[in-house]
Amino acid sequence: MTSPHAWAVVMAGGSGTRFWPLSRKARPKQLLPLAGETSLLHRTVARIAPLIPLERVLVVTSEALLQASRAELPQLPAENFLAEPVGRNTAPCIGWAAATIRRRDPDGVMAVLAADQHVTDEDGYRAVCLQAFAAASGGALITVGIAPTRPETGYGWLELGDEIEPGVRAVARFVEKPDRGRAEAYLAGGKHLWNGGQFFFRADAILTAIASLLPELAEGIAAIDAAAQRGEEDAEVRARYGSLPSISIDHGVMERAEKVRCVVGDFGWSDVGSWTSAWELGEQDAQRNAVDDALAVLIDARGNYVRAPAGKVVALVGIEDLIVVDTPDALLVMPRSRAQDVRAVVAELQKKAPERV
Amino acid sequence: MTSPHAWAVVMAGGSGTRFWPLSRKARPKQLLPLAGETSLLHRTVARIAPLIPLERVLVVTSEALLQASRAELPQLPAENFLAEPVGRNTAPCIGWAAATIRRRDPDGVMAVLAADQHVTDEDGYRAVCLQAFAAASGGALITVGIAPTRPETGYGWLELGDEIEPGVRAVARFVEKPDRGRAEAYLAGGKHLWNGGQFFFRADAILTAIASLLPELAEGIAAIDAAAQRGEEDAEVRARYGSLPSISIDHGVMERAEKVRCVVGDFGWSDVGSWTSAWELGEQDAQRNAVDDALAVLIDARGNYVRAPAGKVVALVGIEDLIVVDTPDALLVMPRSRAQDVRAVVAELQKKAPERV
Repeated sequence: MTSPHAWAVVMAGGSGTRFWPLSRKARPKQLLPLAGETSLLHRTVARIAPLIPLERVLVVTSEALLQASRAELPQLPAENFLAEPVGRNTAPCIGWAAATIRRRDPDGVMAVLAADQHVTDEDGYRAVCLQAFAAASGGALITVGIAPTRPETGYGWLELGDEIEPGVRAVARFVEKPDRGRAEAYLAGGKHLWNGGQFFFRADAILTAIASLLPELAEGIAAIDAAAQRGEEDAEVRARYGSLPSISIDHGVMERAEKVRCVVGDFGWSDVGSWTSAWELGEQDAQRNAVDDALAVLIDARGNYVRAPAGKVVALVGIEDLIVVDTPDALLVMPRSRAQDVRAVVAELQKKAPERV
Repeated sequence: MTSPHAWAVVMAGGSGTRFWPLSRKARPKQLLPLAGETSLLHRTVARIAPLIPLERVLVVTSEALLQASRAELPQLPAENFLAEPVGRNTAPCIGWAAATIRRRDPDGVMAVLAADQHVTDEDGYRAVCLQAFAAASGGALITVGIAPTRPETGYGWLELGDEIEPGVRAVARFVEKPDRGRAEAYLAGGKHLWNGGQFFFRADAILTAIASLLPELAEGIAAIDAAAQRGEEDAEVRARYGSLPSISIDHGVMERAEKVRCVVGDFGWSDVGSWTSAWELGEQDAQRNAVDDALAVLIDARGNYVRAPAGKVVALVGIEDLIVVDTPDALLVMPRSRAQDVRAVVAELQKKAPERV
């Protein structure tokens, strides 16, 4: 068990199209059971729950997703959901959550977790969390660097600096999404990690950093905090949130702040970035087919991902390396290698059948 | 208009699996709208209707399919449906229909038509029918030979003999499904036609031939005919039909009878043999995709056949030469070249989910 001042903030306001046709505007990725039986949001909370009781878990989501998010987490106290009227990227979201925690616990230390990631080694994950809480308790801003497993060009990376204490390193610099050559060099060199977008800091420490680096945001957060103390938080959030600066915590704070540190996470992390991830993380048969829910009939079929409503027959004959995702009103078929191009389908559908997006 | 003695017999008792998942036991191929808006059965009757009034069109089907067949042909008199308690191949079916026609019209000449074929040139088709009726009226047994367009190894072929009269040829012999080499030689040689399984003969002529070549069948037909004259046909059919010899009219009669003749059909014939036929006969876009009913979103997609319930979105990205057929409870994905292997899916389903066959 970690300290009584440990909190978790789950960022669950994301929307996205990469899991169409299963994901829809009203049911984005974090609310879907991907690479597991329950939703990614539910599993994110369950994963941290052995360390932090639910009273100290906040979920920040959008107003549009509030009801669906609550349905995924019926045990979570109602006052622990923060609903953004509009998304303003991660810095306002984290600032608002930090102010909320500081009011409830002036010594609170917060883990900021994405609601839509997958972890294979949950014990290893919690061990890293404990280490990160400890490192953050002295006031450092901690990011979790993920041990890379491939030369990924779709992520930001971290360059490691000196060791500050065992397992905690300075961050020499943040690197934007690299090209293939640089990504391969980073992977080979051993001095770079993926920036996985999970953070640990004292609530007052991140608010101090925001005040110093993003004063306009700090002003807005302070106004919301003051309104909350008067019992008028909802109205203030509705009136003000949309005009907060839209900026990520990486760009706005972590890349520019003092005392930014890194702990290394090597716990089978995935950002579940596309249907290809669902195949990679799925239970594969001897022919590397992974099937979710469907009643599959696979004949000369290799390397496919199949998903359909429970009990629906999906028959593949002579099919390799395809993704087949069926829902009652929409079906997607594409090679695994084209998984990123779901976006093009959604763009086309916005014109042809926007109610299916 | 043809003679008042012209009749049509539509053989509509077939079952089959090659159009799974759209076809099911209770809704086989001839009841499906394939390569057109209405069912193949409906179109078979509509195609001949300009030549033969519905009072002289008989439909032979199975008891199991009787109701569904009637629903497809609500204008057809109820007494024109003959329902087999069990399928016994084509010779008993044709013999029974011939006896029925002979009772109603001793000079009846019957066209025997398959209920599950497609014709592109309907005027040309009817011209061939008129020629075949004329040739059959003198007592010859006429088969329609289809002008071949490819070295098909899945069909029987006819070898043409001497010309008997303009457009009517003797049949030198019937050829079982040839191997590829022979099929190519037949196609190149110009002396062979496909045996398309459509026949024209006087009802009394085919019954005489059956009496001579299949005496056991003739005896059964005679008993049913006698019972029909007593008003007891149904009971006799139920009691006796299952013990009639199960044999095709080709093997049992046409290959062995005297006075077998052939007229040449060249009217865009297809037996709609598989989902590949549905693609071939479908309306193809510039990328040779054919879509039935579905609301398709096609991105880098070429040469595909897509079918889904009306209005269902089917998105293909980077997909070539696939068949994608979706129904509410079953989905099939396979390359066009594997269309014959639907059988293997159905065989597997017989074990796993027989209610979906």
